[in-house]
Amino acid sequence: MFVISEDAEKMVDLKYLFNPASIAVVGVSHNPLKIGSIIYQRLTKNKSLGILKAEVYPVNPKVSSLNGIKVYPSISEIQDDVDLVVIAIPAEAVPDVIREAGEKKVKVAIIISGGFAEIGRIDLDGKLREAIKDTGIRVIGPNTIGVLDPYSGVDTFFLPRFKMLSDGRIAESLPDVTPGNVAIISQSGALSEIIMDCLKVSGIGIRAIVCVGNQVDLSIEDFLKYFSDDPLTKVIAIYLEGVKDGRRFLNALAEASAKKPVIILKAGKTEVAGRAAYTHTASMVGSIEVYRGAFKQAGVIEVEDMEEMIDVVKAFSMMNPSRGKKLFILTNAGGLAVISSDLALRYGLLVPSMPEEIKNNLEELKNRRLIEPMVVIQNPLDLTAQGTSEAFEEVYRIVASSGFFDLYLLMPSHQPPSIDDTVIDRLSRISREYDCCVVVCEHGESEWSRYIREKFDQLGIPSYPDVRRALTALSALTTYRKPRDKSYQPPRRTNKIKWLDSLENGLLDYDYAIKLLSHYGLEAPKTLKITDEGELHTVSGKLSFPVVMKIFSRRIAHKTDIGGVILGIKTHSELAEAYKVLKKKVLEMGLEWEGVIIQEMVKGVELLLGSSYDPVFGPTVTFGIGGVLTEALRDFSVRIAPIDFTEALEMINELKMKKILEGFRDLPPVNLEKLAEKISEFSKITWENPSIRQLEINPLIASGDRFMAVDVRGLISKSQLLS
Amino acid sequence: MFVISEDAEKMVDLKYLFNPASIAVVGVSHNPLKIGSIIYQRLTKNKSLGILKAEVYPVNPKVSSLNGIKVYPSISEIQDDVDLVVIAIPAEAVPDVIREAGEKKVKVAIIISGGFAEIGRIDLDGKLREAIKDTGIRVIGPNTIGVLDPYSGVDTFFLPRFKMLSDGRIAESLPDVTPGNVAIISQSGALSEIIMDCLKVSGIGIRAIVCVGNQVDLSIEDFLKYFSDDPLTKVIAIYLEGVKDGRRFLNALAEASAKKPVIILKAGKTEVAGRAAYTHTASMVGSIEVYRGAFKQAGVIEVEDMEEMIDVVKAFSMMNPSRGKKLFILTNAGGLAVISSDLALRYGLLVPSMPEEIKNNLEELKNRRLIEPMVVIQNPLDLTAQGTSEAFEEVYRIVASSGFFDLYLLMPSHQPPSIDDTVIDRLSRISREYDCCVVVCEHGESEWSRYIREKFDQLGIPSYPDVRRALTALSALTTYRKPRDKSYQPPRRTNKIKWLDSLENGLLDYDYAIKLLSHYGLEAPKTLKITDEGELHTVSGKLSFPVVMKIFSRRIAHKTDIGGVILGIKTHSELAEAYKVLKKKVLEMGLEWEGVIIQEMVKGVELLLGSSYDPVFGPTVTFGIGGVLTEALRDFSVRIAPIDFTEALEMINELKMKKILEGFRDLPPVNLEKLAEKISEFSKITWENPSIRQLEINPLIASGDRFMAVDVRGLISKSQLLS
Repeated sequence: MFVISEDAEKMVDLKYLFNPASIAVVGVSHNPLKIGSIIYQRLTKNKSLGILKAEVYPVNPKVSSLNGIKVYPSISEIQDDVDLVVIAIPAEAVPDVIREAGEKKVKVAIIISGGFAEIGRIDLDGKLREAIKDTGIRVIGPNTIGVLDPYSGVDTFFLPRFKMLSDGRIAESLPDVTPGNVAIISQSGALSEIIMDCLKVSGIGIRAIVCVGNQVDLSIEDFLKYFSDDPLTKVIAIYLEGVKDGRRFLNALAEASAKKPVIILKAGKTEVAGRAAYTHTASMVGSIEVYRGAFKQAGVIEVEDMEEMIDVVKAFSMMNPSRGKKLFILTNAGGLAVISSDLALRYGLLVPSMPEEIKNNLEELKNRRLIEPMVVIQNPLDLTAQGTSEAFEEVYRIVASSGFFDLYLLMPSHQPPSIDDTVIDRLSRISREYDCCVVVCEHGESEWSRYIREKFDQLGIPSYPDVRRALTALSALTTYRKPRDKSYQPPRRTNKIKWLDSLENGLLDYDYAIKLLSHYGLEAPKTLKITDEGELHTVSGKLSFPVVMKIFSRRIAHKTDIGGVILGIKTHSELAEAYKVLKKKVLEMGLEWEGVIIQEMVKGVELLLGSSYDPVFGPTVTFGIGGVLTEALRDFSVRIAPIDFTEALEMINELKMKKILEGFRDLPPVNLEKLAEKISEFSKITWENPSIRQLEINPLIASGDRFMAVDVRGLISKSQLLS
Repeated sequence: MFVISEDAEKMVDLKYLFNPASIAVVGVSHNPLKIGSIIYQRLTKNKSLGILKAEVYPVNPKVSSLNGIKVYPSISEIQDDVDLVVIAIPAEAVPDVIREAGEKKVKVAIIISGGFAEIGRIDLDGKLREAIKDTGIRVIGPNTIGVLDPYSGVDTFFLPRFKMLSDGRIAESLPDVTPGNVAIISQSGALSEIIMDCLKVSGIGIRAIVCVGNQVDLSIEDFLKYFSDDPLTKVIAIYLEGVKDGRRFLNALAEASAKKPVIILKAGKTEVAGRAAYTHTASMVGSIEVYRGAFKQAGVIEVEDMEEMIDVVKAFSMMNPSRGKKLFILTNAGGLAVISSDLALRYGLLVPSMPEEIKNNLEELKNRRLIEPMVVIQNPLDLTAQGTSEAFEEVYRIVASSGFFDLYLLMPSHQPPSIDDTVIDRLSRISREYDCCVVVCEHGESEWSRYIREKFDQLGIPSYPDVRRALTALSALTTYRKPRDKSYQPPRRTNKIKWLDSLENGLLDYDYAIKLLSHYGLEAPKTLKITDEGELHTVSGKLSFPVVMKIFSRRIAHKTDIGGVILGIKTHSELAEAYKVLKKKVLEMGLEWEGVIIQEMVKGVELLLGSSYDPVFGPTVTFGIGGVLTEALRDFSVRIAPIDFTEALEMINELKMKKILEGFRDLPPVNLEKLAEKISEFSKITWENPSIRQLEINPLIASGDRFMAVDVRGLISKSQLLS
């Protein structure tokens, strides 16, 4: 079940979290290794360094002072106002502390303590939620490492910064972060620390990290909203395991993504088991496909593992998204030129030929002896091992100034003697001058390689140690698109069909299904339903041959699989023959004879239009290749329903086999705009009529301007339990 | 054109290259930055360090001494025998030096000099080849950085080891390599240096690097043979741009791969343009598909970029290939457990459930309080942030000792306090004890992360900084398979069909095509060819309805595309109607009327069997999904023809849509062994009959034990020029 949560609209003032005037730490103790103590020490250290401006108050009823500093028995004993309280005490005691904090008018609490719903303590979870509701305090957690904001010095990350090795040496375990423009929202403490640690190596700073924990109150959506409005944040990175309210999440994603790039690593791709699948759609579209559809809808960039997360965040932290996909590749290593242009195509980028005018300008450089006569002027451009730093600069200047390309991959390998380190300043300067969307790739682990990468990073040009990683980053820079609407606001359910209310739970009758589709402008071929052999003679007056005959049965979902469909019937005698065959089949299966459907045959490309109900996001829409190959091809795209015309066009463009829509064999090309209209209309059905839990047209036969729902099946369920 | 080169069999004694007793360097000069000087300095340095045992003689007719050391005016002036000569002088002078070296009985020459065929100097290339032929000397190069052997100290890599930065600091540009078990054969100097540089960071040593240059004499194949017999070599890595003689290469690959893993990065995937494609096969199967087929045939592991090359070579350098694909994942970070098991499945590995017995043994650890009660015993196994180093050890011991899994991915993230560095020794010890195929993944760039990775590497357990990379390596360890034959020896062409000689160049007539197929045991449906309307009445006596009618024309390759095929004809009157329609179509196209083909209709899965001629490898065989979706799906596999039954089975297993062979809709499952026999037979046709340059059955309709060549087209060309 899903609801559009009302509290999504509730105002949250997170300035008390990120910039509190005072902080209380509940759970400070004599043992410096206790989590409360570690957090208190870190906050006071940040205060002594001048980073943290807030007052910090230690709280513990059993301790009166610590190293000469007064420890408060409770929050209420603190005379001054407290904006933020950090709680690191056993779970049982937490709800009372929340109530106390509420009385003290504390604005925000970070509950570090674990031991609630995540270990099955639903009772404690309930008590905590009640305390929050009663007091109106805003809460992060419980069960979290909390928040790290290097600007304000608010930092509850209690995992060790240094650890001892067996030989007694102390080694850094978690480096300090520097302030920067990457905001991280994470459902895992460990992974957020890995991301910040890896970004640091590239000199990328952090706006803030928030680990949301169990999200009893403040959630991913709240922080999405905060960071999307926050001027210090350029890019938002999310490690996501799952959300409860898909619509609210989609809304928050789309709103944030309209303002700045959002990058998501989604774990937990395994299927929700046990869903009854009456259609191909329901059996193919699992949880991850729905999430992925939502990400596309919201303009989110999805990454697949940690390294890709780091690489892509790095690119967005330093570069602006690209307008287009035309890539220019410049190197002095022929092998890299070939490998990178092959990979670029695979990553969806274009490596167009060099336009004549640029080519001529580059040929000039040969006269000036800046590049060797043997160099072939093309894209990718290999200056060979003789290519100098100056040649790199001049070539890049000419190409960049033309504005023909959208993206640049620069690979000045340092090994040949002709490359010196001036190449770094030269290329950075031109990148800035022409505001290029550019990355550098420098392979190798020598001092030089590391130096080159580090310097480029410092100068704001993201560097990568491998072409695949460089191209992944470039490709991501081209996939960010602002969602068309500032926010995702599905139209209200105005179009509900009244007569559906009278139908019973179960498979949807063919007649009703056709009626339903026609209500949404979807056509079916001319059809007769015949239950008695005597009626067969009426067919030729009503339909034109050739026709198709199908078993009509509420008990059989996939008729083709059991030979229940006979195609290409051209005469009356064939009609009679087909009737006998199908009736025999049904009776042999021990089923009741409900008759046959006879349809005029339709020629065209077989597509699938489906809708299924996702427990997190509600109604979804699926468009893909249909017909007998549906499951074998699994070529489809998914969105949260309903969608508009433009989103439907996007779905069409995602098909791997889109080519077959563009004039396949002797068929005319499918009118893609008409098709998008049909998809958009179809997507409204399950949104406007919630009792339709699964619906699938397969095949939808498309040819030119005509779209025919040749077969349709649907499942009605008025119970919210049967998904 | 391809030939099985006779010189592939010529004995090469490369001990004079890798372990010479004496080396002459031609091109040593007063300028220490000249390539000859750099190489001479490096060799004498290696000699002074005691690494190089050989005598080293500088040669230059214009210099009499250098820092007090005698410089020889020519090789012939050196009194002692010379095993190896390194030549770094202008290209024009090289052929004469080769002749001189030949007279001096020098065994091997490394020609560093460029300026031959690679810049269009075919004349000099010819002179050089003549000199080599006349003298019998073996040559590496020209146009190469030569050879680096850290065991013997033979090292001609002249690129700078150190370079100066603008601020005057000296930084290492190319680290020295240590002796190890990885042999590298490369068609690019720069890329070979990057590989050795990156391997060094992981502590991986090099057996030797050979950059083959223009390969006027010694070639990739010679070094493949050498390293495959070399006891110091455990794994062979090749950077490949292309070969001239595909069969010789395949043979060398298969022979080497039967002895040890061969890993190839192939660049140059762009298409050979301008080939006339009369079949889908010829239009789909480009150069890279053929190379990829050859790699599979030879059991080679293909990688796609430099980082993957390094990661996979590292795994094979430290681990033995795996027997199976069953992976166990152990970590203390829940997010990583989920991400890695999702990716593992995508990389073709299996993440099976934990067997009950192991589960019970692991539950015991809860009683011993080694693992937390809340830990869910499953695969992947997340010990949570409370998991200790000891818990990692005990769990790993229990799982490894069971022998149930083939592969292990260990991810003891260091961030939680409960992990100390004893985890390194503990896990390494068990890996050795149970001889596990294992990799470690440790994310992060802190001192601890680096230390953990470095230590595991030192202890022989390959470590990776990212799950995707760890899984790429594990997956590669499972893909190495020894080719079944020790060497790839195609059967002689014994079965040539005589009557083909009498046919003219051009499209193969249908009748002949059917006759050809039947010779190889491939059946076609009952067929009539009819050129006159008057003959139509004979059909019903000879064929059973329903039938198919197709235009017969030597001028139309893809009949379906122009509506030239009418399916499902069930009566005589439909037959007459179809005939009229098709004849009208042909005449309207302005073509000569050659009649129609009438065939009994066949039901089944539509496959494709094709053969096309590759300029490098000769005849190839393609198997895939056929019918109208052939080009849209592009689901096919390729091999160098001919192939045997087992190789054909491998091809079938490679199909992405293999599922449709296993009982699709109302069709019986296809007999895969029978199918493999048919593929193997088909693959012999173009091998045994070279005048058939393209041949394609599409569709081959398969159902149970029956395979019907429903349509076939072929191209005859006796000219070697028309490929």
